[in-house]
Amino acid sequence: MEKLFSKELHVTVKCRDSEERKANIRVTIEQSPSPLHKKDLLVRLTDNGDPFFLFNLTISEEDFQTLKAQQGLLIDFASFPQKFIDLLNLCYSEQESDSPRFLLYLSCQSPVLEGSATFTVVETNAFKHLNHLSLRLAHGSDSEVKEYLAVCLSSLKAEKQTLYTKFKKTEEDLSRQLSYAQQ
Amino acid sequence: MEKLFSKELHVTVKCRDSEERKANIRVTIEQSPSPLHKKDLLVRLTDNGDPFFLFNLTISEEDFQTLKAQQGLLIDFASFPQKFIDLLNLCYSEQESDSPRFLLYLSCQSPVLEGSATFTVVETNAFKHLNHLSLRLAHGSDSEVKEYLAVCLSSLKAEKQTLYTKFKKTEEDLSRQLSYAQQ
Repeated sequence: MEKLFSKELHVTVKCRDSEERKANIRVTIEQSPSPLHKKDLLVRLTDNGDPFFLFNLTISEEDFQTLKAQQGLLIDFASFPQKFIDLLNLCYSEQESDSPRFLLYLSCQSPVLEGSATFTVVETNAFKHLNHLSLRLAHGSDSEVKEYLAVCLSSLKAEKQTLYTKFKKTEEDLSRQLSYAQQ
Repeated sequence: MEKLFSKELHVTVKCRDSEERKANIRVTIEQSPSPLHKKDLLVRLTDNGDPFFLFNLTISEEDFQTLKAQQGLLIDFASFPQKFIDLLNLCYSEQESDSPRFLLYLSCQSPVLEGSATFTVVETNAFKHLNHLSLRLAHGSDSEVKEYLAVCLSSLKAEKQTLYTKFKKTEEDLSRQLSYAQQ
């Protein structure tokens, strides 16, 4: 899969019967790289603070046609990833502002985050809330969460190893300089 | 759970139709701490190199009576954990030797590690192989592996944070000493 986008975004999370809460959710968009196969788009939501938080949606060209008809989109499947990324970047650029115009919501029908949830990009102006895009994502199965956590663990191990190497090199360099300066 | 034992041990792993291979397997023994409840014993096998490797066995006092009868054990449930740990420590102390007397095996009926597997402590003398203990462990379900990986991830994050703090402190200390020495 080719990674097109991966950023931590402020998302308002709302479950049934629960208070809204703000969360930093990583939104990742990937696309199958081969031009021979249909370029399915994978949208993934994860939360660095909650290892079991995993929502996925795969959008094939057929799925996109349904989405396009339902939500009155004016673009084609080939332009969709970039337009979606543009919207997310708008949210990202405004998320530290006091009154961001573009907001992200994740709403779930059940009392806890499970089953499926709707991820929405909303523009708020003085007049109304404008729904730019709504996607229905499914919570990862135990098997999918397991695979996802194994990947997290593997990259964290690599990061820790890099940090350790940097630590040892810095310690060595500074100790050498120190012993030279003390001579 | 109270951790009674946790060490990486050399284990010979054998699946059906596959070559034997040597692996470093972490064997963990835990016991429920409350004296009011029955002190179930949890035996867990994990592999640092394979995030999906997880075998579990819970031994209740009733399970132990069956085990005792089947394998002709002469001890009672209360002494069992320590005797088992003594055996594992014997394996541990001999595992770097050229001809260890005590060996550990994990054998699996299926071609890959899944379903259940038998963990055996074997003593080899000039005359024969003596089977000291055989335990039948079950491979962790997706849900169990998911929980296990979340715990691994959390402790690895903490380790990385500790390493980062140590790195920054060492860098700061050495830089201060260096600037003092250079004055």
